[in-house]
Amino acid sequence: MTIKDVAKYCGVSVSTVSRALNGHPDVSEDMRAKVIDAARLLHYVPNRSARDLASNQSDTLGLVVRGSTNPFFDPVMHAIESECNELGYGIVHRYIASDGDEIAAAAEFVQAKRLKGVILLGGRFDYSEEDAKSIGAPFVCCSYSNHFGDLPKEEYSSVSINDIAEAYKATKALIDLGHRRIAILLFSTDDKSISQLRFDGYCQALKDAGIEFDRNLVFETGTLSMSSAYEKVRGAIDSGIQFSAIFSIADTMAVAAMKAIFDTGAKVPDDYSVIGIDGIEMSLYTIPTLATLCQPQESMGREAARILVDVVEGKTKNQHVRLKTTQRPGGSMGPAKKVILAS
Amino acid sequence: MTIKDVAKYCGVSVSTVSRALNGHPDVSEDMRAKVIDAARLLHYVPNRSARDLASNQSDTLGLVVRGSTNPFFDPVMHAIESECNELGYGIVHRYIASDGDEIAAAAEFVQAKRLKGVILLGGRFDYSEEDAKSIGAPFVCCSYSNHFGDLPKEEYSSVSINDIAEAYKATKALIDLGHRRIAILLFSTDDKSISQLRFDGYCQALKDAGIEFDRNLVFETGTLSMSSAYEKVRGAIDSGIQFSAIFSIADTMAVAAMKAIFDTGAKVPDDYSVIGIDGIEMSLYTIPTLATLCQPQESMGREAARILVDVVEGKTKNQHVRLKTTQRPGGSMGPAKKVILAS
Repeated sequence: MTIKDVAKYCGVSVSTVSRALNGHPDVSEDMRAKVIDAARLLHYVPNRSARDLASNQSDTLGLVVRGSTNPFFDPVMHAIESECNELGYGIVHRYIASDGDEIAAAAEFVQAKRLKGVILLGGRFDYSEEDAKSIGAPFVCCSYSNHFGDLPKEEYSSVSINDIAEAYKATKALIDLGHRRIAILLFSTDDKSISQLRFDGYCQALKDAGIEFDRNLVFETGTLSMSSAYEKVRGAIDSGIQFSAIFSIADTMAVAAMKAIFDTGAKVPDDYSVIGIDGIEMSLYTIPTLATLCQPQESMGREAARILVDVVEGKTKNQHVRLKTTQRPGGSMGPAKKVILAS
Repeated sequence: MTIKDVAKYCGVSVSTVSRALNGHPDVSEDMRAKVIDAARLLHYVPNRSARDLASNQSDTLGLVVRGSTNPFFDPVMHAIESECNELGYGIVHRYIASDGDEIAAAAEFVQAKRLKGVILLGGRFDYSEEDAKSIGAPFVCCSYSNHFGDLPKEEYSSVSINDIAEAYKATKALIDLGHRRIAILLFSTDDKSISQLRFDGYCQALKDAGIEFDRNLVFETGTLSMSSAYEKVRGAIDSGIQFSAIFSIADTMAVAAMKAIFDTGAKVPDDYSVIGIDGIEMSLYTIPTLATLCQPQESMGREAARILVDVVEGKTKNQHVRLKTTQRPGGSMGPAKKVILAS
């Protein structure tokens, strides 16, 4: 049984069947149900791999997601899929662990599936020229940049926010409310990644406001876990470190920070203001709502897909796009009430 | 360059290289870094697909995850991976959308990768004999059961909680605190899935306690989204529906429910008690902490992997394992303070 048989049985085009089976959003739920039922009845199993192996190269792009359970990626992925489908390309996924090697995964994926290009959703910030060569197809870094690598800019594309500028903006939002003793909650100050970049933005904002940097206000978790963020903030308050605001480089850690503050008997935002970066769904449901800089997840995904298709089709050279966040006002941020002296 | 060259270069065994590159937790971070560096230096690209296609069948199992961004699945996946690796099997992943067709995905996956067996993490509850046949390899339903399907029990394996019994337990926990007007927050009462099963458990608990079922206390969201859960609970309170407790069939919706209650000016647990089922990480950081029935995610994953390997190796027939949840006490549940009359 082929896809043509399913199309004939349903009285629709092959492309409608393909879009229905691939979850394309412009197919009605009724039509999708009809097509799925027909595919089952006719024992049709889509076999993209066999087809792709038969031809020299497929019309397929790849998406390698590093850190599959990062809730931030969900809307980005949907946008990438929609845009690729609208541009006439299929897209296949590969997920790797949050500490996995996306370059090796992409290289293998491109080879195994004869991909025309690949989007890396999440990855290292220090690619070399050899890394790019080993992939063997055009690629776009989505949601991150290659800030610390020596890979020339013309060899790859990227779509992300400007991490330094956005961290600066978050820190400045707290400074503008009168806060001077502002802590930063991050993974590491020198991991050559998002955490280091946002730390740089934080330091710059303090400097421009004439606030002295205090190492005691750097809460380094070392990991992505909410529990270590909780412990760091709780520990700092319990040990008497004086501060009135926290800039967390990720929403998940900001949520844990708010809980830690609550558990010491203090209040958000009366005693401590908290601001994050990301805009994940869960951060809308904290009490109070988390103030955060929302990343433009939809545009980020669509832009990455558009650039990849343009590069694959030879319409443009590689591009680097920096998108801006939108500040969501939330109850977690308020004016500084008192002057806190450095401890 | 082969894996043997990498092993020779590092002065370790091939299996250490393999485990390092596959993210196996028993390899130290130092060794992993050393192996990754060597693999890069030697331009080694692991090519499982090519190898697998060359042999008739691989020593590889498959994991099809339906609803890749469901945070509940993360620890289950890690447990499945660890157990498979410990039992000497590689495991490859395929992720599909939360409304995708896991049977079709598994069938294609088994065919394309010559898999010996497959674990389905999330899926429909109504498989037929034809569904099982189309997969073409032994399979285990992990985290769900085939309650509504006519597929004979000896044709597949499953590992899950007993949804009816656990929903009964959650509802009874509220009844034991004196609550009589208990709402249920769910997707649908008749979706032949988890939601319907947990609804049945809720109804049974009410009946056994002599509490009359009230259709007005069934908050049906129709989707998995937190926003619809929020709207349903907020709408019910705003329109004056009288109740003192909510059993939510999922933690994410319970978190949204707590926010909705807060936004009406009411308090958890003083005015409304809330209990969920799942035990996702985020539910530890709500204010107050969500009371919930934690699923044994680790055991669930390990058990699924063990059963699949045993069936694949012909050591046992298909099995069906029901695991128990553990009730996590949380601040979101308290005694009923007043008698509320039916509205």
